[in-house]
Amino acid sequence: MRKNLAAAGASLLMGATVAHAQGIQIAPAGMTPTILGAAQNFNGHVAVDIKAAGDSGKHGSVGMVDFAPGARTAWHTHPVGQLLVVTSGNGWVQEEGRLRREIRVGDVVWIEAGVKHWHGAARTNGMRHLAIAYVQDGKSADWKELVSDEQYNAR
Amino acid sequence: MRKNLAAAGASLLMGATVAHAQGIQIAPAGMTPTILGAAQNFNGHVAVDIKAAGDSGKHGSVGMVDFAPGARTAWHTHPVGQLLVVTSGNGWVQEEGRLRREIRVGDVVWIEAGVKHWHGAARTNGMRHLAIAYVQDGKSADWKELVSDEQYNAR
Repeated sequence: MRKNLAAAGASLLMGATVAHAQGIQIAPAGMTPTILGAAQNFNGHVAVDIKAAGDSGKHGSVGMVDFAPGARTAWHTHPVGQLLVVTSGNGWVQEEGRLRREIRVGDVVWIEAGVKHWHGAARTNGMRHLAIAYVQDGKSADWKELVSDEQYNAR
Repeated sequence: MRKNLAAAGASLLMGATVAHAQGIQIAPAGMTPTILGAAQNFNGHVAVDIKAAGDSGKHGSVGMVDFAPGARTAWHTHPVGQLLVVTSGNGWVQEEGRLRREIRVGDVVWIEAGVKHWHGAARTNGMRHLAIAYVQDGKSADWKELVSDEQYNAR
């Protein structure tokens, strides 16, 4: 009887926990450390502030990315695609086999699934963009080789 | 013969078009008009700048949303979930059946799939947030009734 009551109590508590589980998670400002772009995936100084709460990262990888002048991603592709919202400065985006294109504050850029490309700051100006990469099978990017100085400086 | 050459030419041109199709689309700053929040889905003055390019909207509905003091969404749910990144001011978010919670610049909020909620500015301060709602079957939100003044002013 004591055992049954205890079991009933436990199950009530579990029910209560589920009923009161938070459906909204808040990650307060300044609690997530800035990440520096890893040398195998970036040239130059790149700082990334991940924007995530709860299990939001299951659906999209979201981050504010700050590129110093001359800094850029390596070549890469995305399994679903990536949206960039340029929030300051100006920079470049290039699809393999095409000319690089200038992007500036306020521009929105959509990179389709599977398109090999890089993005980063212009040579003389920094750039900051929000990046939203949609996730498929737990993955939001496939990284390739670094963008050489020759590739970066070509028009 | 002339017909065959014309057909070959057309097919070459089509091939060229496909080979050169842009895999990166850029929506330049200031080309997308601001939308005012519709009266059936919002109380008060709400301005939305959609951030989209190419067919990015198939995967996520992304927008910068500016709420005047007292302005708020109606109650609603999301089929996949929504990430909010507060970029200025402070406001409130509330899940049905729970107390409202304060959110401020820099906070990141994740609203899980199916959770009935609203978000908006505080009574005396405006709020601006980036909102990313993931899309399922062409849908990113299910709208319900407006948040009454009594609900908004309750703690």
